[in-house]
Amino acid sequence: TAPGEAIRATLFPGDGIGPEIAESVKQVINVAGVPIEWEEHYVGAEVDPRTQSFLTWESLESVRRNKVGLKGPMATPIGKGHRSLNLTLRKELGLYANVRPCNSLPGYKTRYDDVNLVTIRENTEGEYSGLEHQVVRGVVESLKIITRQASLRVAEYAFHYAKANGRERVSAIHKANIMRKTDGLFLQCCREVAAKYPEIKYEEVVIDNCCMELVKDPGTYDVLVMPNLYGDIISDLSAGLIGGLGLTPSCNIGEGGICLAEAVHGSAPDISGKNLANPTALMLSAVMMLRHLHFNNQADRIHNAILRTIADGKYRTADLGGKSSTSDYTKAVCDHI
Amino acid sequence: TAPGEAIRATLFPGDGIGPEIAESVKQVINVAGVPIEWEEHYVGAEVDPRTQSFLTWESLESVRRNKVGLKGPMATPIGKGHRSLNLTLRKELGLYANVRPCNSLPGYKTRYDDVNLVTIRENTEGEYSGLEHQVVRGVVESLKIITRQASLRVAEYAFHYAKANGRERVSAIHKANIMRKTDGLFLQCCREVAAKYPEIKYEEVVIDNCCMELVKDPGTYDVLVMPNLYGDIISDLSAGLIGGLGLTPSCNIGEGGICLAEAVHGSAPDISGKNLANPTALMLSAVMMLRHLHFNNQADRIHNAILRTIADGKYRTADLGGKSSTSDYTKAVCDHI
Ligand SMILES: CC(C)[C@H](C(=O)O)[C@@H](O)C(=O)O
Ligand SMILES: CC(C)[C@H](C(=O)O)[C@@H](O)C(=O)O
Repeated sequence: TAPGEAIRATLFPGDGIGPEIAESVKQVINVAGVPIEWEEHYVGAEVDPRTQSFLTWESLESVRRNKVGLKGPMATPIGKGHRSLNLTLRKELGLYANVRPCNSLPGYKTRYDDVNLVTIRENTEGEYSGLEHQVVRGVVESLKIITRQASLRVAEYAFHYAKANGRERVSAIHKANIMRKTDGLFLQCCREVAAKYPEIKYEEVVIDNCCMELVKDPGTYDVLVMPNLYGDIISDLSAGLIGGLGLTPSCNIGEGGICLAEAVHGSAPDISGKNLANPTALMLSAVMMLRHLHFNNQADRIHNAILRTIADGKYRTADLGGKSSTSDYTKAVCDHI
Repeated sequence: TAPGEAIRATLFPGDGIGPEIAESVKQVINVAGVPIEWEEHYVGAEVDPRTQSFLTWESLESVRRNKVGLKGPMATPIGKGHRSLNLTLRKELGLYANVRPCNSLPGYKTRYDDVNLVTIRENTEGEYSGLEHQVVRGVVESLKIITRQASLRVAEYAFHYAKANGRERVSAIHKANIMRKTDGLFLQCCREVAAKYPEIKYEEVVIDNCCMELVKDPGTYDVLVMPNLYGDIISDLSAGLIGGLGLTPSCNIGEGGICLAEAVHGSAPDISGKNLANPTALMLSAVMMLRHLHFNNQADRIHNAILRTIADGKYRTADLGGKSSTSDYTKAVCDHI
């Protein structure tokens, strides 16, 4: 992009509180002076009355073309046979790595104050294959698929990320003592990639042991890479350490260099439309998107403004024990920028 | 058993620190005056020179006959093709439920002081089927098997346990939003059993959410029941909340009424034979075994003695930050009985 030219980015506000928190993010990015032009598309569980659809072809094309986007929460359409829209997006856009930095927020007290880790989750296969069937009545099986291609790809991304972000160590999380072939292949791929990054330490940790250590002493971890389901579990566990999904950003890396930042919390229909939602996770996800676009200066300013607003404690939303509305909190962040 | 008659129970001291901590347990049970006659069998990763074996037929028969036993840590024999002895025992003895109560220990400070939950893990199928194969080069699959029979059996046990122990609620942990058929069948079975226990509350919690809530507020959980791998993960996570595997008892319920109590920590070869190991997990497991045998009075006395010794803080082993030897700690517990 030429200097001064606006960057086009896709925005999926999503369901429930999605539109409100997306509004907050637009304001914050505006105040920070980032020249983003949003292409807004409705993707969500409530059918679009004009298109009769949950997800349009144009919405997908928008991300493929812009290669960068921001996504709010999406509920799963009601009724038998509908797959989760989150999974559909992962599949259609080849979002192979879900990246979630997890850092203790200064001033927001939890039981932990030393969390500084990043989970990198394989996002396309494993236990999420969708291949299940009944063998005979009362006996059901599901297939976990691990491929060399997807494992190498996510391992490459993890080591690349570690190097680019000055991280020291990558831990591969597995259960290869039981699933010797599937998780064994995943580890084999991690080892091959690790050999190309001698400056990054590499270790392998069994998932049950990892979860125990995470609750005892999360400070022992740095970058964690793992198959799909373990990533689902460990990224939420890690989010819990710092206060929950309302505070943790995430971003999905996809085929062809796509970066789709995403708030991974739910759409909270109970508080939607009431100006009560916490936009922090989506704001922090937008910060990840800005860094991806090399707006590091603006990303830092927004990030610091969020941290300061939360540390201040004067403007906090109800989920953090405060009394602020979404818009008051957003205004406080804007004032700090 | 007629009053005064000794109960025969099987003892597998196991590998590494196993024999030392088993010695502690024998002392403690002796001091409490429980008339147990131990049938001791060596099962472990070091081949028995007389039998050339890791596991003898007599060892299995001993548990089947006595229906009650205590098991120390077992390493997995070295060399390709050896399966874990732990898994082999589960399979041979039909140990279908692994039960782990997790309670904060008064006086032993962790980040949590309100943990009082029990994990009940399906122990025979699921992701532990051992069915894996390479489809084509670079593509590997593993089968997760869920059966109605095993799911009903562990659900029955969980509700029976909840009722017998005055618990209020059973939470079934799953990922049925992704694995609709396998975890769906597991939930279906839990619901059927729940309907027979109207006095026990029943809820279903997605595993990622459960892990997040466990680290944020473990006090929200009571009895948790789940398929094999989730149980492996959540039981270790829960143990981490109260200080780790050195402090958490466990017991396996098997076909024909077998109860095999078990310390689930490792064999710690680095400190084995040095009188440094912490026998607490095996002692607390023995307490579970005694309750199963209805020696409630003696079980209470041993349990309280352990709690008091740990709360005292004068005699603690190195893993808990103390300086006591295994034998000094054991003596302190005996003195408290
Ligand atoms: C909503 C659900 C399908 C999803 C998942 O399991 O991946 C969620 O838990 C997540 O982590 O994004
Ligand atoms: C050692 C290993 C095979 C075992 C398991 O995965 O079940 C252990 O983690 C456990 O929980 O007993």
